[in-house]
Parts: sequence; C-alpha cells; structure tokens
Amino acid sequence: MPTAPTLPLHPQGYLSMATNLGIKDTTLDFTVIYSTVRATAAGTFTQSLFCGAPVIVGRERLADGYAQALVINSKNANVATGQRGIEIAREITGLVAAELDIAPEDVIPSSTGVIGQQLPLEKFQQAIPGRLRIQLRPHELGLAAQAIMTTDTHPKCIAKPVGNAVLAGIAKGAAMIEPNMATMLAFLLTDAAIPANTLRPMLRRAVDASFNMISIDTDTSTSDTVIVMANGLAGEVDPYAFETALNEVCISLAKEIAGDGEGATKLIEVTVTSARDAQQAKRIAKAIVNSPLVKTAVHGADPNWGRLAMAIGKCHEEADIRPERVRMAFGDLCVFSHGEPQNADLQRLTDYLKGRDIRISIDLGIRDGQATVWGCDLTAEYVRLNAEYTT
Amino acid sequence: MPTAPTLPLHPQGYLSMATNLGIKDTTLDFTVIYSTVRATAAGTFTQSLFCGAPVIVGRERLADGYAQALVINSKNANVATGQRGIEIAREITGLVAAELDIAPEDVIPSSTGVIGQQLPLEKFQQAIPGRLRIQLRPHELGLAAQAIMTTDTHPKCIAKPVGNAVLAGIAKGAAMIEPNMATMLAFLLTDAAIPANTLRPMLRRAVDASFNMISIDTDTSTSDTVIVMANGLAGEVDPYAFETALNEVCISLAKEIAGDGEGATKLIEVTVTSARDAQQAKRIAKAIVNSPLVKTAVHGADPNWGRLAMAIGKCHEEADIRPERVRMAFGDLCVFSHGEPQNADLQRLTDYLKGRDIRISIDLGIRDGQATVWGCDLTAEYVRLNAEYTT
Repeated sequence: MPTAPTLPLHPQGYLSMATNLGIKDTTLDFTVIYSTVRATAAGTFTQSLFCGAPVIVGRERLADGYAQALVINSKNANVATGQRGIEIAREITGLVAAELDIAPEDVIPSSTGVIGQQLPLEKFQQAIPGRLRIQLRPHELGLAAQAIMTTDTHPKCIAKPVGNAVLAGIAKGAAMIEPNMATMLAFLLTDAAIPANTLRPMLRRAVDASFNMISIDTDTSTSDTVIVMANGLAGEVDPYAFETALNEVCISLAKEIAGDGEGATKLIEVTVTSARDAQQAKRIAKAIVNSPLVKTAVHGADPNWGRLAMAIGKCHEEADIRPERVRMAFGDLCVFSHGEPQNADLQRLTDYLKGRDIRISIDLGIRDGQATVWGCDLTAEYVRLNAEYTT
Repeated sequence: MPTAPTLPLHPQGYLSMATNLGIKDTTLDFTVIYSTVRATAAGTFTQSLFCGAPVIVGRERLADGYAQALVINSKNANVATGQRGIEIAREITGLVAAELDIAPEDVIPSSTGVIGQQLPLEKFQQAIPGRLRIQLRPHELGLAAQAIMTTDTHPKCIAKPVGNAVLAGIAKGAAMIEPNMATMLAFLLTDAAIPANTLRPMLRRAVDASFNMISIDTDTSTSDTVIVMANGLAGEVDPYAFETALNEVCISLAKEIAGDGEGATKLIEVTVTSARDAQQAKRIAKAIVNSPLVKTAVHGADPNWGRLAMAIGKCHEEADIRPERVRMAFGDLCVFSHGEPQNADLQRLTDYLKGRDIRISIDLGIRDGQATVWGCDLTAEYVRLNAEYTT
C-alpha cells in the first residue's frame, strides 16, 4: 500500500477522515469528507440498470443541488442487494448526519467493491457515533483518495488554483471501467462560489470530455459516480476559469484511471479526427481502444498495425467511412493511407510501442468531428487479478 | 500440429488438396476444394468496412448462385492491401481456373492470417500450374480443415447424412471472432441438389443461429466467410431435413470455434429467455459472454456472480429490464431472483465453475424472446498469443 499523497493546495472548509472498518481486510476502507458549510453540489451517475443502492440514494439527494458530506466505503459496492441494501445506505448516512448534526438529505453515500453482498452495518454502527467527528482533519484528502481504492495501484488526486479559490479532486478506477455518461468514483471539491444550476451543466460537459472518454475493459460499473461540491468560502471566481480548471482536473484524473487500469503497463491515447461528427469520432476511437487485439499488440510491442484496420472495419454501421480516405499512425509514424499500407519501418514502430505512452491517430477524411479517448493495454496480470477477485 | 481427422461420411464429387507454400512457416497453408460438377452456392461475408480482397472478389462471384472451386490460404489475410491485393486474389484464382479448366467466375478465394501484407504471388505461381490437379484426392476434407487453421488448436470438421446425400463442413476460428451477420471461415459441402435461391436464405438463417451467435473477443474479422456448395450428385432431398442438418452442422462448428478460442480453457454458453424479443435476448447474452470480468471469473472459477448483474446492467438502453424481474443461474444454481441475492452455496458454484462447459441462464421476465450464444474464458494465454502474433 503506497503512502497517502499530500495535496499542494487545499480548498477551504473541507475536513475529512479515513479509517479501516474491516469490511474485507485491514486496509483503509471508509472515508467521510465534510464541508463546514452547506455546499452547492452536482453529480453524474452510472446508467447501469443494476445501479447500486448508494447511486439510487445519492441521485435522489443531489436533486436539490446541495450537499454537505460524502460518505464512501470501498471493498463492497452495495449493489444487487435489494431493498435491504437501500435501507443500509440510508442508515449509514443517517448515522453520519446525526454525528455531524447536519440534514441526512445533505449526506451522499458511495460504495465500491464486490457486488451482491450486504454491507456489514454493525461495523458502521460501531465506528460512527461519538467517534467520527473527532477524527475529522483539514488537508487530508490524500488519505481519502487512498481509502476509496480497490485494486488501484496508487491514490489519484490533484488540486488547481482558480482565482482565490482551489479545486481539488480525488478518484479511483482499476476495472469494470467504461463509464457511459457517468464515471467511476471521483469527488471534486472547491471553495469557489458556484450556483448549483451553473455547476450541473459544467460537470456534465467536463465528465463528457474526460471520464466518459476512458475505457479499461468495456465493462460499465454499477457504481460510477462523480460529485462536485462548491462551498463558496473563497467567494466568486471567473466561471470560465473555473470550467477550464474543472475540465483539466477531470481529464487528468481520467487519464490516471486509464493508465492505472488493472494489470496495465501502458496508457493508450486514441485521437480520431476528420470524422462526420464528434459522436462518430468517439465510436471509432472506443472501438480501437477497446479491441483486445489492439490492446494485446500494444502490450507486446507487436507492430501488427493491421489490427487498427480491423477495429475501424468492425464499426460497419459507419457507412461513410471509406478505407481509401483513412489515415492511421502510431505517434508520428504513418502506417496506412490512400488505401495502401505505407511500408512503415516496423523496427521503429516496435521501438515506439515499447514506450509507456502510446498515441494512435486516425484521420477519417470525412468532415471535422474529433474525439480523444484513453485506455490501457491488456495483460496477463489483468486476467490473474480478475480470475481470483473474490477468492 | 494435430494429425488431420478423417470424416466418417463424404459428399460425392468433391476433391481436395492441401500443401505448404511457405507463406509464413512450414505448416499447411494452402488448400483447394473442387467439385467435379458446377454446384449451386451461397455465401455470407463479413460486414467489416475494411473487408479483405478475397471477400470483395468472392461476394462478386457468388452473386450468380454458382461455384465450382474454393481456393483458401492461411497465414496472410490479404486485407488492407489496396488495389494490388484485389489483383493478386484474381490472379491466384485465375491460375486455379486455368489448371482445372473451369470458369474463373466459379472459383472463390478466401484468405486468413495477418492483415496489411501482400500475398507472395510467386509462391502460388510455382505451386499451381501443372501441379495442382494431380494432387486432388477425394475424402481428404480433414486435411483441408487443417490447412485453413491459424492459431486454432485442432481442425474443425463434421459430416451428417441428409437422405441419400451428405452435408460436410469445415471451419476455423481462434481470435478476432465476433461475427456480425457473417462469420469466420467455414465451408459447407453437399451432394444434395438444392436450388441456389433456396440455398441462400437457408444459409442466412443457419448462420444467424450459429456463427452469428459466437464471440471470442468482440473483434470482428475482416475476412469472415461462410460458403455452402451443393453439387446435386446425390439428387434431391427433403428441404426441411436439409435445413435441419445445415443448422446442426453450423451450430456444431460454431461451438467448436467458441470453445477453441485463443487461449480458451472453457466453453461458455449463455441463454437468455423471456426477453422482449430475440434481438434483446441476443444483446444481453452477448454483453455477458463478452464481458472480460465475467470471462476472467469463469476462468478462475471465482463465484463472483455479481458480474452478471454488472453485464446486464450496462445494457442501459434496454429500459424495460427491471432488476426485480431478473433471474440469474449458473447451471441449475440460481444466484439472484426477485430483486435479491439468493445466498447460493458458493462452494457448489465454485465446483461448477471448475468444469469445462459453463452454462449461464438469464430470465428477464418480460415476454418470450430468447437466444443462446457461445464464447470462452479469457486467459493469460490469450494475452500471450496476441502480444506476440507477428513477431
């Protein structure tokens, strides 16, 4: 377990604690992030039909645009747990609300981990009343980032100044990662003052360009959640500067999640340009970054560029794509254009593929739509980790 | 390399040869199957936008409903090879037509192997004129099945009687397998007399229920091809009996391809019942059989059934699926129903998952749509094979 990172900057008015409840093992598995004042807030959640109990409760409670505390556990997702799972999520957040003397409607739950098992409520009952408040500290979001990890290899956190305010973000990823209009767990905290009805569309746009552009294994989690809180303690900031910072923070965390996919050794960035529109560019980029044969070739530094043609070709609904107009490149090495292989130097391609960051560029030669997505290689370690996850 | 199997039954009038041209290594890489009389024929092909040169030529030549020879090489797919690739496919089939004294339009090419490299035409020029005809033998389709293999671990062939006639089939699979209204290479030969306009819709229906229901890795090949030839030497047969045999042969070959996926140790069969319609059942079944997290759990015999909920849940467009109506089972062990986990005996589930054939059943509780699909587990061996494919 790596030591918890310390952020260089901190938004005002956020306290947090993290501890081990023993849900599965002895690592950190429980964290609470608390704003000393009520904050405007917005969230995006998984679109899974089997979404978790905390997603159901959190979606309900963020509808009014306000929140004051985030209550997050790892090691158990509280998903496919029926009515009892929803009751348990409400009971845990109720315990936290009572301990902090705030409204239960302002306490947002999140859970990540195994699906189909009830959370051990008694462990929360022992840890929260009379014990939680005294553990809250400022400037410990790094520890919170560590407590929300499952098979992530390192905590993911970042902070950026925005005028007099600060925007901080923490996230976790690892596997079951192909967010769809939603994302894995990420929590963004600022002391800027941003009205709830401005915050919500800003978050939507930032998530669309970041977390919704990553895929580790095409499997969409039942628990994906991104929440932003703005408690206003640093006053107003330029909304444009804030949105820029929000986009940068989300893209940075999303790339960290993609590069730290289970078993991953490489970050793969696929940019598709000259598509009919941004949606087509995203579909083609996702088809490439999700192709097991592209992912394994990148893993093995196998200069088998023909698999890019395969991955584009399988998107057969995109009838306006013509092989003779498509250009494909790894880094700045063009491998196919004008309908013909470009006899690229395969040794140079192999050397490029041995790097840690692999950039694939596809130009479709249609119009001006474009998209960039991020993913990772497919390794034997991914198989090992997931063949023995619960046992 | 396993020895070539011998079929128990043979359709009349089909001769074949197989040899090594040295396209990549010293294993069999070239086969010709020849009907002594012109046969009615039908084919289905990949819908890939980057389909191979042989697919372009074959589709053209089967339009008239007739064929007399199949010319197939492995180790090189002749895909993404531009105009020259198409010329080479025409030149090779032209050499075969001249050697056998038949019309070039009745010679259908197929190629499978690496993408993006030109076929070595000179090796075909050396092997065909004056040499091919004398190598043709009856009853050697098993050797042809071996010659079309790439990373398949064994040849796939089958024969069934239909009245006085015989239907034989050979196929290859391995990876880049998620046929979409098409399939990997499969060749079906009969001496029954079936008119071309009956054969075509029969093949379409059989392929839809068999090859279009398998997935090894979600990657759709650029070369998928199924061709059926009926030379009529055994006379007419009951069309219903023929269609039944055709379906059985296709399903049998499709299951063999799925179970022999690259690196696979298990065949996974997913049946979805009580769906809105057959298309929805297929989408849900494919989401499960393609989920890397389901595939790795099956591989490791990890009783992590919650991943079924995840895989169903990610099909978020299927808004009529309600978790409380869904039933999930492995073999006859129910793990989830009525919206609640069923506290299944996890040791029994683990023992079941240690078997070779894994059956997953999902009942959606909506209407009467159903579908069965086949796939395989995801293993470290799949990663190894594909990280070093061309090198």
